Amino acid sequence: MNRLTGVREIMKDIIRALRSDPSKQWLNLSPGNPLVLPETDAMWREYALDIVHSKEFSELVGRYGMTQGFDPFIDAIVETYNKLYNWGIKRENVLITAGTQPLYFLAANTFAGPDALTGVNRQIAIPMVPDYTGYDGVVLDEKMVVGFKPRMEILGDHEFKYRIDFDAIDIGSHTAAILCSRPCNPTGNIFTSDEMHRLLDYSKQWDIPLIIDSAYAPPFPNLAFVPMELFYNEHVLHCVSLSKAGLPGERVGYAIGHERYIEALEPFYSNMGIHSSRFGQAMVAKAMLSGRLADISERVIKGFYKRKIEIFREALHKHMPSHINWYLHRCEGTLFSWLWVDTEQMNDLEIYQKLKGGGLLCVPGSTFFPGLRSEYAHKNQCLRFSMTAPDEHLDLAAQVVAKELNGHTNKR
Amino acid sequence: MNRLTGVREIMKDIIRALRSDPSKQWLNLSPGNPLVLPETDAMWREYALDIVHSKEFSELVGRYGMTQGFDPFIDAIVETYNKLYNWGIKRENVLITAGTQPLYFLAANTFAGPDALTGVNRQIAIPMVPDYTGYDGVVLDEKMVVGFKPRMEILGDHEFKYRIDFDAIDIGSHTAAILCSRPCNPTGNIFTSDEMHRLLDYSKQWDIPLIIDSAYAPPFPNLAFVPMELFYNEHVLHCVSLSKAGLPGERVGYAIGHERYIEALEPFYSNMGIHSSRFGQAMVAKAMLSGRLADISERVIKGFYKRKIEIFREALHKHMPSHINWYLHRCEGTLFSWLWVDTEQMNDLEIYQKLKGGGLLCVPGSTFFPGLRSEYAHKNQCLRFSMTAPDEHLDLAAQVVAKELNGHTNKR
Repeated sequence: MNRLTGVREIMKDIIRALRSDPSKQWLNLSPGNPLVLPETDAMWREYALDIVHSKEFSELVGRYGMTQGFDPFIDAIVETYNKLYNWGIKRENVLITAGTQPLYFLAANTFAGPDALTGVNRQIAIPMVPDYTGYDGVVLDEKMVVGFKPRMEILGDHEFKYRIDFDAIDIGSHTAAILCSRPCNPTGNIFTSDEMHRLLDYSKQWDIPLIIDSAYAPPFPNLAFVPMELFYNEHVLHCVSLSKAGLPGERVGYAIGHERYIEALEPFYSNMGIHSSRFGQAMVAKAMLSGRLADISERVIKGFYKRKIEIFREALHKHMPSHINWYLHRCEGTLFSWLWVDTEQMNDLEIYQKLKGGGLLCVPGSTFFPGLRSEYAHKNQCLRFSMTAPDEHLDLAAQVVAKELNGHTNKR
Repeated sequence: MNRLTGVREIMKDIIRALRSDPSKQWLNLSPGNPLVLPETDAMWREYALDIVHSKEFSELVGRYGMTQGFDPFIDAIVETYNKLYNWGIKRENVLITAGTQPLYFLAANTFAGPDALTGVNRQIAIPMVPDYTGYDGVVLDEKMVVGFKPRMEILGDHEFKYRIDFDAIDIGSHTAAILCSRPCNPTGNIFTSDEMHRLLDYSKQWDIPLIIDSAYAPPFPNLAFVPMELFYNEHVLHCVSLSKAGLPGERVGYAIGHERYIEALEPFYSNMGIHSSRFGQAMVAKAMLSGRLADISERVIKGFYKRKIEIFREALHKHMPSHINWYLHRCEGTLFSWLWVDTEQMNDLEIYQKLKGGGLLCVPGSTFFPGLRSEYAHKNQCLRFSMTAPDEHLDLAAQVVAKELNGHTNKR
C-alpha cells in the first residue's frame, strides 16, 4: 500500500517535467482532472451559497455525522435511483464515501484475503484489462488483484474495441469479488449488456459482489456516448463518483448495494475515517433533488468531452503518417482517448518519453493493466490521452504524436 | 476492521435507547460530539462565505488536488507552528488528512505488522490505558495493538490521576510505534513533560515514531486546562484534528512529522482516498492565518468546556452519598469527565445500564482500554461523561449518578 502505483510514478515524472521549465507551454494530456465548466461551476457555487446561508450550515460542519452519510443526501440517492431506474432501493442500500477510491479500498480489503474456512487467498478479479490503474493500489497485498487479458476486435482502419475473453477469465471459489469500470477508464469501452449478464451470472454462481465503478456512467456525469443499460441486483455494488460532474475537490461518492454489503463496509469505513465531509454531500443532495445535476450532465458535460474526443480523433486521422499501424479504441464513454500503436520497436514508456521530448504529456498504457502478471505485448503498445486540454492543444498533440512516431517502421 | 469497536456497540445501544422513546428527555452525556458555539459557528460561516464568493472556489471544488493537501493550508500550518513553537518545519513535514482517524489507520498499518527481516509481528504500543477507544479499530489485526495498565495516584477525597507505569510497559524491537492522546480522551489526563521525555527516549532508542494524538491540545482547540509543552522532533508524528474546534462535519486533520514518515504515509493515503475534501481545508487555512482560530480556542472553547467540567464536578460533590468511593480523574484537558467508582459489586456496563434506566446516557469505561488483554479490575469501574450537555443537565446527571449508585455498599 505504501508504494506509488504505476500511474503515480508517471505523475511524479510529469510533475518534474512541468516544474523543470515552468515557462514552457506543454501540451498536457496526462491528467484525469476534469475541466471546470461554467455550467457546473455556477451550479455548485449556487448550492454552496444556499448552504452557507442556511440554518443547517451550523450543524452540517459543526457536528459529527453518521458514518453512512448525511441523511438528506442518502434520501436524495434513494429517490433519484428509484425514480430513474426503478431499483426499489432503500436507505440501507446506500453508503456515502469520500469519492469512490475509499470504496474500492474498503471493498477489496473486506471481501478479499484468506478464506476463513479453506485458507485459500480469495482475489479481486478484474474481468478485462486495461482498466483503472487505481485498482492496483487498493489492496494491502498486490497478489490479491488478478486481471485478465481482453479479446480485441479491429473495427476499421484505425479503430478497435476490447471484449471480455470469457475463455481466459478464471473466476471461481478463489474469487472474492469482480471489479470493473463501466464506462472504462482508460479505454472508453462500455461492456455490452450481454457481457454484463455473463458477469452477473458469475457473481450469482459464486455469491460474490460485482463491483461496478460507475464514475463515468449515467445519470451523472453521464459520459456514455452510446446507450448503456445500468444493472442492479443483490450481487451488484454500484459505485458512483461526483468527481467527473465537476466536484473532484470535494470527494463525494457513494455505493448502492445489498444491505449485507453495505453493513460489511460501513464499520470498516468508520474505523478508517469516521465519515465523509458533509459540505459536499449537502451540495450534491440539492443538485440531485432539483434534477439539475442530471440535466447538466446530459446537456453539457457529455457533449463537451464527446466533442473533444472527436477533435483528437480527426486530428490523428489528418496528421498520422500512413505507414503507422495505429488504432483508437472506440470511445463509447469517459473523457479519454486510448491509442494503440501496433509496433514492437518501441514500448509505451519509450513512446511516452519521445512525446514528452516533443512537448506532449500523456500516460503510458502499461500502467492500466492491474493484476495482469503474464507477458502481453499489447500491454506496452498503448497510451492514454486525457481530453481535458484546450481544443487547439488536441490538434497540436496529434501533430506531435504523428511527428514523433514518424520514421517508425511497423512490424507488418 | 469490519467489527464495530467497543464504543460503537455502545453507541448503537444508545441510539436504540434514544429512538425507543423519542418524547423522553434524556440526559445525554454519551457523545464526543462537540457543541456548536456561536463564535466558532460565525467564524466558519464567514470563511465559508468568503470562499464561495471567491474566484478560487471553482478550482477548489472543481479540480482534483494533491494528496498531501491544499497548498495554502499546508503553508498556513508551516507558518503557524514555526511562529508559535519554532519547530522549523517545512512543507514536506505536513500531510493533510480527513480528520485524524485516517492518520491513525494509515500509521498503524504502515508501521505495524510483520518485520520484513525477523518476521516478528511489530505492534502499536499504547503506553497507558485508558486511552482513545478508536485505536482498537485502526488495525487490520487486533493483536497489532497492545496497551499497558497505568499507575494510579489518589489526589484527594474524590480525585485521582493516572501516570505511566514505566515498570509495566514493554517497548522494544517488537514495537512499531507508540501511540497516545495528549490531552487524553477519555480521562482528561495530560502526560507530564517528564513522561513525554521518557517516551521520546523510547522512540529514539528503537527508532520508532511517537504518534501524539493532539486532538485536544494547543493551539487549537486548546482544551488544555493546565500548561502543557508540545514536543516535536524527528521521531514525533504530531496529529491534529479540527473537530473539537467546531469543524467535525468537515473532517479536517493533519500530521506534522519527519519527511520519512510523511513520505511513507502519503502514497497509502492516495491509494485509500486520493486526497481530503478541499473546502474545509480552505476554511481552516483562513482561520489559522488570521489568528482567529487560535484566539477563539484560547478565549472561548477552552473556557466553555472547563466551566462545564467544573459544574459536573461540583454537582457530584453536592449529590453523591458519602458512603460511595468515587473519584474523578483530575481534568487537565478535553471535554470529558472520567469517573471511577471503586467497587466490585457492579461493573461499568451494569452501572451504565442502571444510569440509562435513570434517564442518563454515558459511555462505560471498559471500552477505553485498547490493546489491554490482561485482567484488570479497574477497567470495569469507570465511566466517561461528555460535557456537551446543557448546564442544567449536568447537575441532573450528577443527581442520577448519586441516586442510582445509592444503597450501593462499597468494598471498603
